[in-house]
Amino acid sequence: MGRVYLVGAGPGDPELLTLKAYRLLKEAPVVLYDRLVDERVLALAPGEKVYVGKEEGESAKQEGIHRLLLRYAQAHPFVVRLKGGDPMVFGRGGEEGLFLLRHGVPVEVVPGVTSLLASGLPLTHRGLAHGFAAVSGVLEGGGYPDLRPFAQVPTLVVLMGVKRRVWIAKELLRLGRDPREPTLFVERASTPKERRVLAALEEVAGGKVAVEAPALWILGEVVRVFAEKEAPVDALALGG
Amino acid sequence: MGRVYLVGAGPGDPELLTLKAYRLLKEAPVVLYDRLVDERVLALAPGEKVYVGKEEGESAKQEGIHRLLLRYAQAHPFVVRLKGGDPMVFGRGGEEGLFLLRHGVPVEVVPGVTSLLASGLPLTHRGLAHGFAAVSGVLEGGGYPDLRPFAQVPTLVVLMGVKRRVWIAKELLRLGRDPREPTLFVERASTPKERRVLAALEEVAGGKVAVEAPALWILGEVVRVFAEKEAPVDALALGG
Repeated sequence: MGRVYLVGAGPGDPELLTLKAYRLLKEAPVVLYDRLVDERVLALAPGEKVYVGKEEGESAKQEGIHRLLLRYAQAHPFVVRLKGGDPMVFGRGGEEGLFLLRHGVPVEVVPGVTSLLASGLPLTHRGLAHGFAAVSGVLEGGGYPDLRPFAQVPTLVVLMGVKRRVWIAKELLRLGRDPREPTLFVERASTPKERRVLAALEEVAGGKVAVEAPALWILGEVVRVFAEKEAPVDALALGG
Repeated sequence: MGRVYLVGAGPGDPELLTLKAYRLLKEAPVVLYDRLVDERVLALAPGEKVYVGKEEGESAKQEGIHRLLLRYAQAHPFVVRLKGGDPMVFGRGGEEGLFLLRHGVPVEVVPGVTSLLASGLPLTHRGLAHGFAAVSGVLEGGGYPDLRPFAQVPTLVVLMGVKRRVWIAKELLRLGRDPREPTLFVERASTPKERRVLAALEEVAGGKVAVEAPALWILGEVVRVFAEKEAPVDALALGG
């Protein structure tokens, strides 16, 4: 029974792979990968590559992925399960790991640079934010998230929130966030196609902000720290 | 004027460095590093190494670090500023980046695997946690954090919280968290000396739980997902 490595591919730039992820990709007989894994990362793996991606919120395929992982683990000395960002943050790595362990398959987690950090901006900053939170705009199965527990955190990062940005913004306003709070969308962070869009929360709620998925959405005063001439909001872009 | 790279060293295991961090460490004429950077990571850098560490909450030295970074940037083609985990999460990378940009020094962020993910456990999990938050137990300057905005999040990760764990647990109970909520301390995560301690929130509040700093502290039902015979809480330990 081969070991399954749950591996984080990082936000996009292949240089943001960990040394361990890079080594495993090079050696793996088979890689099962998700929708948001960068093609430049995938190109590093010489072994068999199996696409098992799902759309946002799509859940029906998850059980099929579990069975597929099990079958590959039975047939190979080891298997890489590759996920965008980190495998244990909004990646359903916990479900896959649990299923495999219950079926006697050894599992090892190789954490990656989470997409939450792909803007290069600070999520905490002295005097402005002593912590942060992250939430997905789409639940497993497609449902809408309960935003109440997250409404008052100083910095909030929303993943998979682009399509529902107007709903999310309205909901956060209803829950008491400041309409003038600065927010930043980062489309395709850490890739050559990265684009940054600054907008106040009320502008997003008003449906006035054009953004394309996938994008990271950061809400909070930390966005304003890098918004001056000497230190513009894209000064710390990761490039790609 | 040399570029300053704000580089994440990851949680400890040198294989969890990014390819970019590894390359920069190998080439850097000088590395300014923090207290919690693993010595195995540091050993990879052949250049000059300058320790600029601070104790938890210590703030007086921060301005000195800024001036030192500026001086080294003026004297070298480039400089690596190495921080444990990721530089922009509780790492004061934002302050250092802002200071340098304002003084005309080019800055580039190289994100790392944040220590928040060093347990290997999922921070989100279907039906249990649709998001998470992270807070530091010690503010810059040593103050106590306002935990109110974080009290209701499904998964809460506390960094630098070991010394104040009784206060933090009592405060979270006062703010309405479940006394029987499972919590997990992970001492020296992703190193050979890693140790895991499971305890209910009320046990921590009662001063009955022995833990040594530095440790990651995860609170929430996600801790219980990996607590069965087939999938124990250390099944996904990163090893070291």
